[in-house]
Amino acid sequence: MKLISYLHDGASHWGCVIDNGTGDGVVDLGRRLPDFASVAALLEGGDAALAQARAAAEGAAPDHALADVRVETPIARPRRIFCIGVNYAHRNAEYKDGSDLPKYPSIFMRVAESFVGHGEALLQPLESKQLDYEGEIAIVIGRRARRVKGDDALACIAGLTCMNEGTIRDWVHHAKFNVTQGKNWNASGAIGPWIVTVDEFPQGYGALRVQTRVNGEPRQDDTTANLMFDFAYLVGYLSTFTTLEPGDIIATGTPIGAGIRFDPPKFLQPGDVVEVEVSGVGVLRNVVKAEEVNA
Amino acid sequence: MKLISYLHDGASHWGCVIDNGTGDGVVDLGRRLPDFASVAALLEGGDAALAQARAAAEGAAPDHALADVRVETPIARPRRIFCIGVNYAHRNAEYKDGSDLPKYPSIFMRVAESFVGHGEALLQPLESKQLDYEGEIAIVIGRRARRVKGDDALACIAGLTCMNEGTIRDWVHHAKFNVTQGKNWNASGAIGPWIVTVDEFPQGYGALRVQTRVNGEPRQDDTTANLMFDFAYLVGYLSTFTTLEPGDIIATGTPIGAGIRFDPPKFLQPGDVVEVEVSGVGVLRNVVKAEEVNA
Repeated sequence: MKLISYLHDGASHWGCVIDNGTGDGVVDLGRRLPDFASVAALLEGGDAALAQARAAAEGAAPDHALADVRVETPIARPRRIFCIGVNYAHRNAEYKDGSDLPKYPSIFMRVAESFVGHGEALLQPLESKQLDYEGEIAIVIGRRARRVKGDDALACIAGLTCMNEGTIRDWVHHAKFNVTQGKNWNASGAIGPWIVTVDEFPQGYGALRVQTRVNGEPRQDDTTANLMFDFAYLVGYLSTFTTLEPGDIIATGTPIGAGIRFDPPKFLQPGDVVEVEVSGVGVLRNVVKAEEVNA
Repeated sequence: MKLISYLHDGASHWGCVIDNGTGDGVVDLGRRLPDFASVAALLEGGDAALAQARAAAEGAAPDHALADVRVETPIARPRRIFCIGVNYAHRNAEYKDGSDLPKYPSIFMRVAESFVGHGEALLQPLESKQLDYEGEIAIVIGRRARRVKGDDALACIAGLTCMNEGTIRDWVHHAKFNVTQGKNWNASGAIGPWIVTVDEFPQGYGALRVQTRVNGEPRQDDTTANLMFDFAYLVGYLSTFTTLEPGDIIATGTPIGAGIRFDPPKFLQPGDVVEVEVSGVGVLRNVVKAEEVNA
């Protein structure tokens, strides 16, 4: 199932995306399941709630064409977004600082407001021309969990989505440690279009492909086979120190090929179309816009 | 006014703390002002809401003795907590890495669940004996703000509270960059006891003293006169990249003298009483407890 959050007639809705033979349609599940106010609330309801959602979607006619709604991040206003730094083995080498493979992952956090939904504008801010893309696979947590490992950790995953973990490069280097200010610009990244639930990944997460294209030109392309810290490890490691909650998001790191790594760098320009595609999930597409006003 | 969030008979309440001559009493303002469900909601209401709170508290008899309620963090479950790294000039020197004063502040984020309220137990986790204190002054934002500076930045501050920005030292060093995993252990820090509103700081924020004591022994003691990045700068800098919202918290950094800086280090032990005192705010007091179960 593809879970989606969207705006229609100015109000927030949630539902699922189905292909009814004439293109993508959206079924408004919030209307059919008023006990669940959002995708996050559905996930909090666990397997029973998901079963209700599946039953409600079964055979339903779409309420809207996908093109007719404004897509939000699939968890609307996610409460906690943990991001993993360098995680693809090739990328550690790309840093060329002679360092061995890291023993533990690097983690930073992003606020909800730094992300927009599929189809919304990514903002090149007034203060920097160094907006850069980072295509990633994002895990969405579906179960409360502390100190879980292995299969128990995997069982906490509700589904996957695409992320453009957009970054303002010069601001990443403002501080000796910590990248917070380069990673949290309003509308600098995107999540979506939807969450594909785990039942659609019967083969597991060991060979998922993530690709980033700018104006159709491939820039990043790697698979989870090259992850230094796999999904089970990441969920387990985070759950060692914090209780994971339904709706939490874990961005699993980006492959080599971000714009900063080209010579000269290829930062995003207004009008650029950025696509992040994850196998089994879909394509997250956003257009870059220069920020115009003090919003 | 001292704004407080608390639990009584198992339910969440908010109000203010008054001294009625026989010790601290709590006035339940949520009951008197049902339009505001929380301290965060009150702050969202701006000056008019604060005026209503003052009027409701005026002459009111306390509903509870402070000792009879369970104190929560003053913003219950704060949505965004930005923490400033090394910010007291002496502390930059303490690092002894020969670095000049930084040009920009270092910022990391903490999740709400990593903090408890005044009087609650700080947890020494199963995985580490290196729980350490960091006494700080925390700014609470009262006004939505983007790209503000100087007096306009100061006008966004609703009030101040004390923070023990408790840290698991060995986990801070798990990654080359980013301190997230050492700074986000469940119940490793504390915020409170209350927010003292800005009207009680007519002299400004240039000479506030922050002290940390462990079992009565002074460990940290400095004043905001030694801040490298003052409150107006911090609010302004953060508001450059993110829209600050009422209820957001900015921890302004800790003075020299954390436990890790002693030889041998003086980490917190079960039974230790940690106090963070900020002039004009009060004393945040917590007792350290060894974590017993897989909570």
